[in-house]
Amino acid sequence: MRPVKASTTDPWRIGVAGLGTVGVGLLELLARRPDFAPGGARAVVAGVCARSRSRPRAAEIAHLPWFDDPVALAASSDNDLFVELIGGSDGPAKAAVEAALRAGKPVVTANKALIAEHGLELALLAESHAAPLLFEAAVMGGTPAVKMLREAMVGDEVAAVAGILNGTCNYILTEMETSGRDFAEVLAEAKRLGYAEADPTMDIGGFDAAHKITILAALAFGCAPAYRAAEVEGLENIELLDIRLAKDLGYRIKLIAWALRSGAGMSVRVHPALVPLDHPLARAGGVLNALFIEGRAVGRIFIQGPGAGAGPTAAAVAADIADVMTGAVRPVFQTAAASLPAFQSIDAAHAVGRGYLRLLVRDQAGVIAAVSEVLAESGVSIDSFLQKPVEGLAGVPIVLTTHAVALSVLSEAVRRVAALPALLEPPRLIRIAPI
Amino acid sequence: MRPVKASTTDPWRIGVAGLGTVGVGLLELLARRPDFAPGGARAVVAGVCARSRSRPRAAEIAHLPWFDDPVALAASSDNDLFVELIGGSDGPAKAAVEAALRAGKPVVTANKALIAEHGLELALLAESHAAPLLFEAAVMGGTPAVKMLREAMVGDEVAAVAGILNGTCNYILTEMETSGRDFAEVLAEAKRLGYAEADPTMDIGGFDAAHKITILAALAFGCAPAYRAAEVEGLENIELLDIRLAKDLGYRIKLIAWALRSGAGMSVRVHPALVPLDHPLARAGGVLNALFIEGRAVGRIFIQGPGAGAGPTAAAVAADIADVMTGAVRPVFQTAAASLPAFQSIDAAHAVGRGYLRLLVRDQAGVIAAVSEVLAESGVSIDSFLQKPVEGLAGVPIVLTTHAVALSVLSEAVRRVAALPALLEPPRLIRIAPI
Repeated sequence: MRPVKASTTDPWRIGVAGLGTVGVGLLELLARRPDFAPGGARAVVAGVCARSRSRPRAAEIAHLPWFDDPVALAASSDNDLFVELIGGSDGPAKAAVEAALRAGKPVVTANKALIAEHGLELALLAESHAAPLLFEAAVMGGTPAVKMLREAMVGDEVAAVAGILNGTCNYILTEMETSGRDFAEVLAEAKRLGYAEADPTMDIGGFDAAHKITILAALAFGCAPAYRAAEVEGLENIELLDIRLAKDLGYRIKLIAWALRSGAGMSVRVHPALVPLDHPLARAGGVLNALFIEGRAVGRIFIQGPGAGAGPTAAAVAADIADVMTGAVRPVFQTAAASLPAFQSIDAAHAVGRGYLRLLVRDQAGVIAAVSEVLAESGVSIDSFLQKPVEGLAGVPIVLTTHAVALSVLSEAVRRVAALPALLEPPRLIRIAPI
Repeated sequence: MRPVKASTTDPWRIGVAGLGTVGVGLLELLARRPDFAPGGARAVVAGVCARSRSRPRAAEIAHLPWFDDPVALAASSDNDLFVELIGGSDGPAKAAVEAALRAGKPVVTANKALIAEHGLELALLAESHAAPLLFEAAVMGGTPAVKMLREAMVGDEVAAVAGILNGTCNYILTEMETSGRDFAEVLAEAKRLGYAEADPTMDIGGFDAAHKITILAALAFGCAPAYRAAEVEGLENIELLDIRLAKDLGYRIKLIAWALRSGAGMSVRVHPALVPLDHPLARAGGVLNALFIEGRAVGRIFIQGPGAGAGPTAAAVAADIADVMTGAVRPVFQTAAASLPAFQSIDAAHAVGRGYLRLLVRDQAGVIAAVSEVLAESGVSIDSFLQKPVEGLAGVPIVLTTHAVALSVLSEAVRRVAALPALLEPPRLIRIAPI
């Protein structure tokens, strides 16, 4: 059974570990609206913890009980609900969440890495101590993707979830297209503006989006989160040239996170993809996040909103706090963790898709014939073709889009094309979104 | 306290009143997936009721306990949760919901008219008997607008909600534009296809959308639903000519439902409006529903999906059933009904907006000067102007868009323009969406 507070009229005492922008946003929200939760229950901050007590912050913390150790804050009987905003899949964040759950204390976290990588283990701990573990803020900031999949879609069977889950990558792609600057230049600007971390690997490499889609897949399909099963490709190889050529063909390049389920199993992947220009995912620009959920009965639901930021993320944490206050009893991932089915990976050899293949070739006769022949011999059928001289390039870009084909066949064909003597650089293959 | 079922391992026994397409969809869902709810609790149909027992249906009901009277089904101790799918703001639907709540029984309903018109009264009854009253399916079918406003946005303050909430009207407007047929013709087709009722007044007149936005406003602003405060204008006066001229100006005409809150109060209204062509609401075509939620901290969240249909609506009912099973305790409308603030109507005289004004005039000199003069004298400033001969028309259409102006000033100006002798028919005024 859930531990019950001494009295239903006492305020909920909240312990907050991690006082970055989201933590400070939460302190401000709770100071301004301690009675924000429906039904009149109040929430007060009863303890805080961060790496530095003295660092300048937008919120006053001198009057709040201070803890040097997040595990001590998590285990303290002076708070009823522990909010983890430290971040990181391991280390103090994990230790503190485990300590709170072991004490039977509800936990609210914004930590996508922690839930994606250790979700099953934490769900087992949470459920064995009857402590809720909520993580709305881990995915899409203030846009309630977690709640939709965990609660609103339970009357349906979800077949697919696909979306833009990393605002940094989306900002960079949008800026490259609108300003005509290359990847490195826009990334540098994003760092200056605070849209990208000093070390942007988690974002740019697709790992942040992979954490998020891993969590959504677990909720959508009712299985354990399986971050290691995710296939991840980042933005590193996207060139301005491809953004332009894709647009000429009627597409926009986006970093898309997918979770798919079929009779054969499940797949979770993150990779750049060409999306038709008039598709809602193509139209979500800048730091926006956007998501499609496809249910067997409901059809397609689309949701779009801010994916990060102190205000939206703190509001998502607050919504989770309010959910804990309702006393709702739900498994962390749709089915009791002790009997949660494993993620059933689809054999990648079965994957089928369309490709965008861009070559840079010497301007000489016979190149197109040679490329076409190699593709035909490999069993890849061409859908459209574009050859367009681009000023300032050493060669001529050739772009092909293919009909649907086994991705293993497509990869092999690209390897053979790469060996043609007319090529000035390795071919670029980007998948076309099946949407 | 909530009545507790005898044992947590017994299945939840569901009584279903109303066996139209949604009711039958729910029976099919529960027959196929009695364990759909997270956590393993089961739901079984323990009694049904409809106007005719023998009417042919897609679901087998012969084995289910039959009730002639929905009130008897609602009050029966043979079921633990009552689902009301009868419809209508009064009569048997209201009587049955009241009977269930008086018995302390959770109620799930898809009945927007009932909640919009009697929400406060029913919330008082529900809360005095500690019985949950849920209505996700009442708004946007399978798209979880209710859950988003009731639960996901509680950490924020919602300033505005605006959207397309009636699929019939949206279908008619989309068909008029794409097929070039007039309102009456497309409405007749919508009736044949089952997208419009035999008596389409509730849809076409804007009343269905007004019920829905009334409910969303109550959840967004934490006040009692106030259907009578809604300002409602339907599609009856929208002509194909205006759809075409609006498009020439870069707009699409949509029936938009609004709920707005400012320091001055709240307003809820439904009316046709010109929406910029590249706005997501303009791009939601056919029977789709779409909604913007604007939060002070979160910013804008957009959600789009199917607004009706047996599958989506039954899935929304099932999600509510699953919510009841979690044991969550929440007020029906954010604050305990006994202390729920009243809806604070903004004085309509304060409303400001831009207008699209279309005239049909005799093709003679001086008409434009006369119209411009009247508008200028009335204090209405013109933003853009379009005069475009249209084949087959007795006169020449003139279209003006205005700058923002008090709507009372605009109406008075239109009355004065209407008196000009060159006019062949009354002027058409459509508001331009402030988005």
